[in-house]
Amino acid sequence: MGGRVFGSEEVVIIAGPCAVESEEMLWEIAVRIKEAGAALLRGGAYKPRTSPYSFQGLGEQGLKVLARVGKALDMPVVTEVVDTGDVETVAAYADVLQVGARNMQNYSLLKKLGTIDKPVILKRGISATVEEWLMAAEYILLAGNEQVVLCERGIRTYEPWTRNTLDLSAVALVKHLSHLPVIADPSHATGLAHLVGPMARAAVAAGVDGLMVEVHIAPERALSDGAQSLTPDQFGHLVREVDLLAGLMGRRVR
Amino acid sequence: MGGRVFGSEEVVIIAGPCAVESEEMLWEIAVRIKEAGAALLRGGAYKPRTSPYSFQGLGEQGLKVLARVGKALDMPVVTEVVDTGDVETVAAYADVLQVGARNMQNYSLLKKLGTIDKPVILKRGISATVEEWLMAAEYILLAGNEQVVLCERGIRTYEPWTRNTLDLSAVALVKHLSHLPVIADPSHATGLAHLVGPMARAAVAAGVDGLMVEVHIAPERALSDGAQSLTPDQFGHLVREVDLLAGLMGRRVR
Amino acid sequence: MGGRVFGSEEVVIIAGPCAVESEEMLWEIAVRIKEAGAALLRGGAYKPRTSPYSFQGLGEQGLKVLARVGKALDMPVVTEVVDTGDVETVAAYADVLQVGARNMQNYSLLKKLGTIDKPVILKRGISATVEEWLMAAEYILLAGNEQVVLCERGIRTYEPWTRNTLDLSAVALVKHLSHLPVIADPSHATGLAHLVGPMARAAVAAGVDGLMVEVHIAPERALSDGAQSLTPDQFGHLVREVDLLAGLMGRRVR
Amino acid sequence: MGGRVFGSEEVVIIAGPCAVESEEMLWEIAVRIKEAGAALLRGGAYKPRTSPYSFQGLGEQGLKVLARVGKALDMPVVTEVVDTGDVETVAAYADVLQVGARNMQNYSLLKKLGTIDKPVILKRGISATVEEWLMAAEYILLAGNEQVVLCERGIRTYEPWTRNTLDLSAVALVKHLSHLPVIADPSHATGLAHLVGPMARAAVAAGVDGLMVEVHIAPERALSDGAQSLTPDQFGHLVREVDLLAGLMGRRVR
Repeated sequence: MGGRVFGSEEVVIIAGPCAVESEEMLWEIAVRIKEAGAALLRGGAYKPRTSPYSFQGLGEQGLKVLARVGKALDMPVVTEVVDTGDVETVAAYADVLQVGARNMQNYSLLKKLGTIDKPVILKRGISATVEEWLMAAEYILLAGNEQVVLCERGIRTYEPWTRNTLDLSAVALVKHLSHLPVIADPSHATGLAHLVGPMARAAVAAGVDGLMVEVHIAPERALSDGAQSLTPDQFGHLVREVDLLAGLMGRRVR
Repeated sequence: MGGRVFGSEEVVIIAGPCAVESEEMLWEIAVRIKEAGAALLRGGAYKPRTSPYSFQGLGEQGLKVLARVGKALDMPVVTEVVDTGDVETVAAYADVLQVGARNMQNYSLLKKLGTIDKPVILKRGISATVEEWLMAAEYILLAGNEQVVLCERGIRTYEPWTRNTLDLSAVALVKHLSHLPVIADPSHATGLAHLVGPMARAAVAAGVDGLMVEVHIAPERALSDGAQSLTPDQFGHLVREVDLLAGLMGRRVR
Repeated sequence: MGGRVFGSEEVVIIAGPCAVESEEMLWEIAVRIKEAGAALLRGGAYKPRTSPYSFQGLGEQGLKVLARVGKALDMPVVTEVVDTGDVETVAAYADVLQVGARNMQNYSLLKKLGTIDKPVILKRGISATVEEWLMAAEYILLAGNEQVVLCERGIRTYEPWTRNTLDLSAVALVKHLSHLPVIADPSHATGLAHLVGPMARAAVAAGVDGLMVEVHIAPERALSDGAQSLTPDQFGHLVREVDLLAGLMGRRVR
Repeated sequence: MGGRVFGSEEVVIIAGPCAVESEEMLWEIAVRIKEAGAALLRGGAYKPRTSPYSFQGLGEQGLKVLARVGKALDMPVVTEVVDTGDVETVAAYADVLQVGARNMQNYSLLKKLGTIDKPVILKRGISATVEEWLMAAEYILLAGNEQVVLCERGIRTYEPWTRNTLDLSAVALVKHLSHLPVIADPSHATGLAHLVGPMARAAVAAGVDGLMVEVHIAPERALSDGAQSLTPDQFGHLVREVDLLAGLMGRRVR
């Protein structure tokens, strides 16, 4: 995508807000994160939310905004798809399609994604074993799409002080067992902005092929997931740290 | 359904094989379980399986078999739906639609099920909190379908000797917090036939409005979930036990 | 103990306050619970608490109070021991010694308890597998004490609305695998008084040989675990329910 | 200890076999790991094992061997204590005392360790929350011993392909919340030798103050935990990697 290859020597940085809230907001964030070193722009248009009363995303309107901003800045865009019926629409706007943790075993969706010619990021289910995760990937691969990227985003444990528990041993295990690239999402995993930096570094040291990080201009005003979003300045600092670390591992961020 | 009401004084017994394998097999089981006291007939036509290489069910062919057998024996039928695109087809054959644990947070599917006029059994996700489960039900209710039945089917824990851990405190909690009827599935929860009886009794004592039990003529030859299936004789014994217990709670099985 | 046998046809009811707070308080509770059908009196003198700043129990002073009240009312008493160095002292006052969840794998303590001639209630560790639990019992048995009673008291899961998750399938599994009697503690497991009744009934239906229930005259003023304690009236109601249920299972409460 | 300070800019490396098996074996390992950069020597003399039929360690005999080898090589030694009654004996031989995961809430032991003047490594309980872990440390601190080092060693989750799940977000959280130094044990956490390297690197990137690593001359012949032990060569490689990484974080290994 735009010359970026998951699983190469590059540690691909995907960044952006949890949800696309407005074109102006997205534009402002995208300019800043591109400058800081992000390769891809992420943003949710269809938001699966635990409560039906929470903000559900802008839908196709959000996809259009995302595509316009991505194109203007020459950044491939990543967004989530939540329904088999939406796959074609989302694929028309996005460069990379993401399957969220809640849908990791939505096999109809996975089979449908196996028929398109775009990379798919498959997030690990919130309590999926590594075996179930690899088997879910198999549904996409078997249906014909070999561009699958796994994403560790934290598993559910009994610990209440973090949102989930980032399982980096699963990253190392997947690198050992599978040829598929694997990235990590320290933002959703921890739910706490001050843990994103340490966990992003740890993920790179454990061997991830990329990172997905939430960035917001004003985290305290975000419509979703504000507590875990970095400001653009914090994100810039993180990219520099990660770049040094990647260098030590024989890799690079850009 | 057929005069049965979830949440009434009746403890509704749903039984049948994990998957519809053939009309002859289903017919044989259905006759025996009806005789033993089952009110509804269950059987999977669309089977969500962890591996794409496992038996995936007979699809619409399975639905037809299920509908024919149910009609002939005057037993309403329950079956799982796994894709928004299949809802209408499944609703054309089944009396009750079931959402499996893997799809509890497939909100597109839940919203679609909110638009039909048939009861929906919503299984608890394998690591869903009670709050997430009730919120998932809210997606169906909010879309207009008020016939939602919750089903506790075991949660994922660290214990390896049972398939999952049947959480009966969640049953008691849901009875306390919500007006929705709640049933339990001791077969999937334990994964062991010899635990189905004790857990079915415990579930009734905890206050469930129904039970879903896997029965197979020859469990050792089942294409899926044989280890947890009861024989018709074992099932008959279980119904008698449960009936006595229900009586003590001011309820009845038939 | 006092003619009571764990693992017989009797479902033995152990009740009392979480901690011995004063002789007057204990006396008042004990009279009421004996009247309601409790066979044994429980009360903590050495309280293992997560925080060193919480109430730690009255120590030997508490043991004396417990022994006096138990003797006066002809109720055998159960209390927790937390240190190998205290085993002899506790055994001098108590009829049954209890190992709490936090100490299930304190093997020094278990070995020491294997050398005394009093029954030991071994609570399941908060995240112990059934295998680890049975192996912990083996430490006591191997050291020479065959009077071991297992107690399921809830395991740690991700669910935040109950204190722990009562795992009744473990009860049924242990009854299947071992000759040891097994009881359940629905008070600690749920942490919510309104769930104690349903879970006590469910435990009996699953086959437990006894129940351990927290009762307090004024739960809202208890120094520990008030939210999960029943009043004597609620406890009396529970015993009557459990008695009927036990009868159905070919057992009895007294 | 020997000039080493936990919580300084040094990342302290503790290495050695799971259990002291013989003086010859320990000597051979110790020479090699010292050469490779280990600061402290570890080895178990009192081994808490799930089954009473497993190898339980050499006891005081093992302590003597450990002390002799440590002294000869000028390496401070670390070993586990499992009973309040053993604290003085263990403290007579060891430079640092370790509390294992099973005893994290053995408060009698913690209080006793609060009375000695040697550093204590407090391993996180297998399903302890961060709050419970910090509170357990408080028992030692409150009793007068301020030399407490926390050790993350993996928590129990549902994932069967690793022994436990190393929770590095807990490391980052503890660094944020507490002044106590924190180290990680990737060997026990993963249970797989090929994951020890990636997880050791990740731990350093997350900010640990030290690492505890199992090394054995012939892992395939170890009496316990062979599958997770590194050979001395593998360990040497790991120390070099970790040293580079530590340098990047403004720290050093020796």
